[in-house]
Amino acid sequence: MSSAADHSINKPVLYSYFRSSCSWRVRIALNLKAIDYERSEEYLKIQPFGFVPAFIDDKTGHTLIQSVSILEFLEETRPQCPLLPKEPLERATVRALVHAVAMDIQPVTNLRILKYVGDDKKADWAKHFLTEGFKAVEAMLEKTAGTYSFGDSITMADLALVPQVYNGVRFGVDMTAFPIISRINATLGEIDAFKAAHPTKQIDCPADLR
Amino acid sequence: MSSAADHSINKPVLYSYFRSSCSWRVRIALNLKAIDYERSEEYLKIQPFGFVPAFIDDKTGHTLIQSVSILEFLEETRPQCPLLPKEPLERATVRALVHAVAMDIQPVTNLRILKYVGDDKKADWAKHFLTEGFKAVEAMLEKTAGTYSFGDSITMADLALVPQVYNGVRFGVDMTAFPIISRINATLGEIDAFKAAHPTKQIDCPADLR
Repeated sequence: MSSAADHSINKPVLYSYFRSSCSWRVRIALNLKAIDYERSEEYLKIQPFGFVPAFIDDKTGHTLIQSVSILEFLEETRPQCPLLPKEPLERATVRALVHAVAMDIQPVTNLRILKYVGDDKKADWAKHFLTEGFKAVEAMLEKTAGTYSFGDSITMADLALVPQVYNGVRFGVDMTAFPIISRINATLGEIDAFKAAHPTKQIDCPADLR
Repeated sequence: MSSAADHSINKPVLYSYFRSSCSWRVRIALNLKAIDYERSEEYLKIQPFGFVPAFIDDKTGHTLIQSVSILEFLEETRPQCPLLPKEPLERATVRALVHAVAMDIQPVTNLRILKYVGDDKKADWAKHFLTEGFKAVEAMLEKTAGTYSFGDSITMADLALVPQVYNGVRFGVDMTAFPIISRINATLGEIDAFKAAHPTKQIDCPADLR
């Protein structure tokens, strides 16, 4: 969704939440593409439904929502450090990896769903759907992975993967069952753009969690 | 995901399930773009995890999965009847509408989730998350809709919307609460490409449901 902003800005602004895996994806993209941006915690004041992330484009003043849509927009408007291959079939393969996380895992294991599932059942729920989801992604990676999720260049697939693995670990999923995912995640964890995007490095992360 | 096929084909093949809303999205795109394709019910024989839809590209023999990734691939390789605008900000707006359905509604209300939720609770679950999701989409459409979801041309957003409304009705959501969604859905329902993609028109739809 986009709407005209009532203020002019010098830099893009990201409305983010430190623990939100969807915000995290966009933070990695901004870091990799070396796009200077302002962080804001005040998202509830401007955001429809308080969804994060929201991205205010400095060139147009428009507000964009939906993390994968923001990633595609950044790719189309800031082509440096491309996060999709050029060839359509390869692009489709990378997007399938992104969507396997962004459609089949994240939406069914996020905060809003677990709240509705209830305190007594949410741990089992999260573990079940995270495990099922990682099984599918691991099988896809068997065919596509090199150093990273798709060959030897970082792609959008890696941006989706890292935050999801963090949540897998958080909910006690046995990640040793997914050796390719674990290897790629460890490799990506050494890269500055990924380090700086980590939840514990965000301004809204409580001090006791850093 | 893509993999080399072991057979040559003359036409693209769509592995589909009549009631799958993700399959339905792709059927509409193929119809709008006038792409002749073969339908197959035998998806379980070739499909990893039995996911639908799967699309076999006739030019390369590769199998693609993930419905939105397939839509983007069709857009990049078959530009006739474009389903995304040209301008990046407009593309981001259409994709946000697609993802509001494909990430926030469909994954949390589909068959696999409702099965896990259980027979006694699934009706309430589906109604709750469908209603929440349609509220968000209706608010987005207030800013974007013309004749269709985004202005006066059919876009990917419409392909995501129609199958989701069908499921909303099926689960007893009061769709009169969403007048823009309902109007657009009714308008789209009159278009041949949408009519031919309807579940009841598919070869695997049981006779008593037609």
